[in-house]
Amino acid sequence: MALAIMCSGGDAAGMNPAIKKFVDYAHKLNQETYFIYDGLEGLIDNRIKKASHKDVAGIMHIGGTILRSSRSKRFFEYENRERAFKNLQTCGIDGLVVLGGDGSFRAMDIFSKEFNINFVGIPTTIDNDINGTEYCLGADTALNVIREALDKIRDTASSFNRAFVVEVMGRNCGYLAIVSSIISGAEVCVVPEVSFKKDALAKRLREEVQNGRRYILAIISEGTKSTYEIGTWIQDEIGLETRISILGHIQRGGNPTVHDRMMAFEFTIGAIDHLLESKNANKVIVYNKGEFQLIDIEEVVSQTYQVPAKLLNAINYLD
Amino acid sequence: MALAIMCSGGDAAGMNPAIKKFVDYAHKLNQETYFIYDGLEGLIDNRIKKASHKDVAGIMHIGGTILRSSRSKRFFEYENRERAFKNLQTCGIDGLVVLGGDGSFRAMDIFSKEFNINFVGIPTTIDNDINGTEYCLGADTALNVIREALDKIRDTASSFNRAFVVEVMGRNCGYLAIVSSIISGAEVCVVPEVSFKKDALAKRLREEVQNGRRYILAIISEGTKSTYEIGTWIQDEIGLETRISILGHIQRGGNPTVHDRMMAFEFTIGAIDHLLESKNANKVIVYNKGEFQLIDIEEVVSQTYQVPAKLLNAINYLD
Amino acid sequence: MALAIMCSGGDAAGMNPAIKKFVDYAHKLNQETYFIYDGLEGLIDNRIKKASHKDVAGIMHIGGTILRSSRSKRFFEYENRERAFKNLQTCGIDGLVVLGGDGSFRAMDIFSKEFNINFVGIPTTIDNDINGTEYCLGADTALNVIREALDKIRDTASSFNRAFVVEVMGRNCGYLAIVSSIISGAEVCVVPEVSFKKDALAKRLREEVQNGRRYILAIISEGTKSTYEIGTWIQDEIGLETRISILGHIQRGGNPTVHDRMMAFEFTIGAIDHLLESKNANKVIVYNKGEFQLIDIEEVVSQTYQVPAKLLNAINYLD
Amino acid sequence: MALAIMCSGGDAAGMNPAIKKFVDYAHKLNQETYFIYDGLEGLIDNRIKKASHKDVAGIMHIGGTILRSSRSKRFFEYENRERAFKNLQTCGIDGLVVLGGDGSFRAMDIFSKEFNINFVGIPTTIDNDINGTEYCLGADTALNVIREALDKIRDTASSFNRAFVVEVMGRNCGYLAIVSSIISGAEVCVVPEVSFKKDALAKRLREEVQNGRRYILAIISEGTKSTYEIGTWIQDEIGLETRISILGHIQRGGNPTVHDRMMAFEFTIGAIDHLLESKNANKVIVYNKGEFQLIDIEEVVSQTYQVPAKLLNAINYLD
Repeated sequence: MALAIMCSGGDAAGMNPAIKKFVDYAHKLNQETYFIYDGLEGLIDNRIKKASHKDVAGIMHIGGTILRSSRSKRFFEYENRERAFKNLQTCGIDGLVVLGGDGSFRAMDIFSKEFNINFVGIPTTIDNDINGTEYCLGADTALNVIREALDKIRDTASSFNRAFVVEVMGRNCGYLAIVSSIISGAEVCVVPEVSFKKDALAKRLREEVQNGRRYILAIISEGTKSTYEIGTWIQDEIGLETRISILGHIQRGGNPTVHDRMMAFEFTIGAIDHLLESKNANKVIVYNKGEFQLIDIEEVVSQTYQVPAKLLNAINYLD
Repeated sequence: MALAIMCSGGDAAGMNPAIKKFVDYAHKLNQETYFIYDGLEGLIDNRIKKASHKDVAGIMHIGGTILRSSRSKRFFEYENRERAFKNLQTCGIDGLVVLGGDGSFRAMDIFSKEFNINFVGIPTTIDNDINGTEYCLGADTALNVIREALDKIRDTASSFNRAFVVEVMGRNCGYLAIVSSIISGAEVCVVPEVSFKKDALAKRLREEVQNGRRYILAIISEGTKSTYEIGTWIQDEIGLETRISILGHIQRGGNPTVHDRMMAFEFTIGAIDHLLESKNANKVIVYNKGEFQLIDIEEVVSQTYQVPAKLLNAINYLD
Repeated sequence: MALAIMCSGGDAAGMNPAIKKFVDYAHKLNQETYFIYDGLEGLIDNRIKKASHKDVAGIMHIGGTILRSSRSKRFFEYENRERAFKNLQTCGIDGLVVLGGDGSFRAMDIFSKEFNINFVGIPTTIDNDINGTEYCLGADTALNVIREALDKIRDTASSFNRAFVVEVMGRNCGYLAIVSSIISGAEVCVVPEVSFKKDALAKRLREEVQNGRRYILAIISEGTKSTYEIGTWIQDEIGLETRISILGHIQRGGNPTVHDRMMAFEFTIGAIDHLLESKNANKVIVYNKGEFQLIDIEEVVSQTYQVPAKLLNAINYLD
Repeated sequence: MALAIMCSGGDAAGMNPAIKKFVDYAHKLNQETYFIYDGLEGLIDNRIKKASHKDVAGIMHIGGTILRSSRSKRFFEYENRERAFKNLQTCGIDGLVVLGGDGSFRAMDIFSKEFNINFVGIPTTIDNDINGTEYCLGADTALNVIREALDKIRDTASSFNRAFVVEVMGRNCGYLAIVSSIISGAEVCVVPEVSFKKDALAKRLREEVQNGRRYILAIISEGTKSTYEIGTWIQDEIGLETRISILGHIQRGGNPTVHDRMMAFEFTIGAIDHLLESKNANKVIVYNKGEFQLIDIEEVVSQTYQVPAKLLNAINYLD
C-alpha cells in the first residue's frame, strides 16, 4: 500500500515526531510512504515526494514541521479538489494521514466522501480545541514553552511593584490560558469562554495589594483581543505599573516534549493500522480516558470543543 | 482540621508543587497545615512546623522538595512509631498526606492501622513503578530531563563513528529506560525486566554498521548494573568506540513540567478532600485511564508494578 | 568594616550571584554585611538588614534579585538623601556596593560627594548600555533568553510563508537587537541608533521573497516604538502575513549564565577589594579588553554609551 | 578563490555557526566554498563537496558539526598527506580553514609546510586548553550545559544528607571543572593540575558536616580518572552516602550559546580575511584581552596550555 502524510493548518511541536514514525512504522510494515508538502496547497499543486528513512533522520527534536503547512482557500473549489485527487491517484496513494485541526478535517470530510479517499486525521493543534478528543498533539509542548516564559517572569516580578500581562495563543478557546494560569499561579486569567468580571476582580486585587501583594500576573487568551486593554485597566484600577509580553509563535516551536513524542507515535501507529485495515476510512483518531479510538470525522466537526467545566471553574479560584 | 504533609523516600520534581497546593487548598478550606521535615525520620524526631502561604511562595518551579526526605530504618521499630504518633497528637494533626513510593506506603500502612491514623498517600517516584497507578508524580519531569540529555548526545553522536551508552534511573523497573529509548530512537535498551539478547542484537547492529549506521545509542537501567559491561561489549562485539554517560541525580531535579504540576495539584486536592471526608482513611490516590481514585494501601503494596506489555514489547522494535 | 549592597533600577540576571558573592567574600575577609532592600527607596526608608550566609543559600540560579529594586524620585530631594545617609550611619555601614545603571550611578555620585560615602558601582543592565564598560552584568543571560525564543520561532517560521516581528528590550540602545539579529540571522533589525531605510529594504526583501525566501525574521528594539508599524509595513510592502512577539520581561528573568555568574563574582570581588582599600571611593568597576578597572563615576555618567561601530555596521549586512 | 572548511578532533558546539558563517561570508566576498567531511580522514579520502547557502540553512542552533570530524592516524604518513594535497589541488582549493585543537594544528603545520598550504586554524575545543588563546570555541556552551546539570543536582541535593560527585570533561586540563566549581559553588574540585589534598579537605568537610552542612558537591575532571575513587573516599572519610553522575558527551552537544555564535562568526571572518590576503598563511586565529590576532601555528603548539593561576587558586577557596 502507498501511504501519504501531510500537515494542514497551524503547525505544532509533535508534527515532526509523527512524520518520523509515519515513515519508520510504514516501512516496518513494508508499505510505501509519500510526503505532501505545504498542506492542501501542495496537494492541489502536486508537491508530493516519495519519502525514505533518510528524510526523517534527526527531526525528532525539531519543533514545527519539515513538511510545512498551509491554510487553503482554493481547496473549497471542486476543481482543485479534483486536481488533488488526481495527484494522489497518479502516485498510487491509497491511504492518507493528515495532521491538522477541525478546519482541515472538515475539508477532508468533503474530499474523502467525494473521491472515496481512505483517510485518518490526527488532531493536532497547540490550542487543544478539537471536539471529540481530550488531547491534541502539540499542546503539551506549547504549555511547557509558556511555563518556561512564566517562570522567567516570576523571577523578575517581585523586584518591583508591578503587573505582568502575558498573552498566550488560543483563538476561540481558553485552554492554554487556563492551564497556564493554574500551573503558574496567575492572579488573572481572561479567556473567550468566560466574561471578565472586572469590578469584583478589581476589588479583590486592590485589597491584596494593600495587604502586601507585590505583583500581579495576568494571562490573556489571544482570542479575546483584550491584552492591551487589560494592561491599561490594571494600571488605572489597581494602580500597578504594567508590562506586557506577547509570546506569539514561540509557542509553536520548541523541542517536542516526551508526552508529545509518545502521543505522536501512538496517534500515527493507530492511524496507519486503521488505513491498512480499511479501504475507505473517514476517521479521526482521538484520545480519551487513556485510550485511543477512531471516530467519524462528522462527530469531530459537528460540535465545537468545550473546555472541561473543571478547568473553567478554576479561573474563579486562582490565588 | 489540622493536616500535615511529608515526603518519604526518593525525591522527585512535582513534590514542591504538591506542597504548595497542600497549603493553598487547605487554607482555602480553612484547615490548619503542618510540614513534617525529613520524612519519617523527622516524624520520629518531631521536626514538625506549622506552615503558611509564605513558606510556599516561589517554590513551584524548583525541583526536589523543600521538606527534604529520608529513608528510615528506625521507623521499623514500634517504639519509634509510637514517638511519631505522639508527635502528631501533640500538634493535633488529624490528617496526613505522604508523597512517597511503595516502601513508604508499606510503612504507613502499619503505622496507620496501629494508631488509627487518617492517611492518604500520593504515589511519587521518578521510576513510575508503583503498583495500582499508571502515573507516579515526577516521572514526566525526569523523562524530559533525560530527553534533553539524549538530544544533546544525538547532536554530537554523528560526528564520529561511535556508540553512546547512557545510564538512566530505575532500580527494579525499566520504565524510564524504555520510554527514553522510544522517544529518542535508541538502538539498544537494557532493563531489569527483559533478558538482554546479546547475540541477536550484535548480529543486527554489525549489519547496520556495515550498511552505514554511524553511531549507536544504548540506554541502560541503573538497576541492571551493566552499564560498563555493555559499553565494553559494544566496543568488542560491534567494534565502535564507546562513550558512557551516567545521568544520576540530574533526573531528580529540574523545573517540574506542566504535567507534573497539574498532577501534583490534582493528587493533592483529591488527598485533602478524602482526608476531610473520612476520619480514618488508609488510602493511596491513584490515576488510571484519565481518572483519579482512592484505593487501599494494601492493594498498592500487595503486588510489584509491571511495565505495560506494550512498552516492554517496544524494546524489540527499536530502530 | 561594614559593607552594604543594593540593587537600583531595572533588574537583571546576575544580580543574585553578585549578592551571594558579596556575602561570601566579605565574610571570608571578616567584614560585616548588610542588605538594603528595594533600592534607593529602601535606603531612604531604612529597609536595611544584616545579611548572613543563610540569606544567600540557593539563590545563584535564580533570575532577578532577592533584594528587589526600585527607581526613586524621592532620592532627588536632599532631605531624603540625608535620611538615607543617617540610615547608613546608624548601621555603621562604611562601604556601599550598588548594582545598577547610569541613572543610579548619577544619583550615587551626588550622594557620595554630599555625604562622603565610600561607594563602588557595578554596571548592571540587560541593555548593556553603560558608558565606559564593554560589558554590563545581565546582558549575556538576556541575550541567551532571546536566542532561545528566536530558535523556537525559526522552527516554526518555515512552515508558512510569513514574517515574524520580535520586539526585544533596549530603551535607547540597540545592543540587544543587533546582537540578537546577528546570532539568529535575522533579515531586519530596527534600532534607535540607525534610521530605518524602508525603501531599499523593501526592494531587497521583495526580490528575496520572489527568489524563494519563505519567511522573514525582524527584530525591533522596544525603544523605537515601531514594532506594530513595522509589522504592518511588512504585510503591506512585502506581502507576507505577519506575526508579532513581544518578549518583555522574560528577558530579565532566567537562570544566570556561566558568563554572568563569573562576571558577577569578579565585579563583586573587585568592588569589595576597592572599598576596603579606600576610605572614600566614588567609582564604578568596569570591564574592558579582558580586564577590570575602577573608573570615576563622572567618567561613566558624562557620556552616553555608543554601540561599537562594528555592531552597528552589521545591521547593513544581515543576510 | 576557493576556500574549504573542515572539523578535526573532538567536536564542539559552535562548529555549526562557524560553518554557516564560512559559507555566507565567503559568498558575500564572491569566493567559492567547499566542505571537507570527516576531518583529516575525509581529506585523505576525498570526501570533499562544493557548499552552498542551502547546505547551511537551519544549522545555527544545532550542537556538534554537520561536517563530522575524526582523529586520523593515517595522516601521520607522508603518502596520505600527499593524497590529501592532491585532493585539494583537484578541487582547486587554495585556502583552508580548520576547526580543531592543538593535535590537529600540529598535523596542519607539517602539511602546510610540506605542500605550501594556505591555512588558518580556529581553536575549537570544549576543554578550552589550547595554548596562545584565552578562548576556544565551544567552551561557553559546554560550561552552560554543565551549569544546567549542576543546578538540577542542587535542587535535589539538600533533600538527603548526601554527596554528589560529578565528572566533567577535560583530559589534561581542569578548566571546565574549575569554572564549573566556581559558578556552582562546589565544595570539592579535582583536576589534573593540582594534587588533591585529601587529609586537609577531609578534616574541613567533616567539620562542616558536623556544623550542619547537608550535602557536598564534588566536581572531577575526567582526566584524573579518579571519579569513583573520590566517591568512595567521601563515603568512607566524610560519612556521606555518595551519588555519581558522569556527564559525558552531553557536554559536546547543546544549542550554541550567544557567545559561541559570536565567537564562531568573528573567528571565521578573521580566518577568511587572512586567507584572502595571504597566499601562504600558516596561522591560528586567537582571542586575547578582547582582541583577535593571527599567530604562527608553532607558537600555539610549542607549549601546553596553562590554566590561569587565578582560576587554579580558586580551587583552594571553594566554599
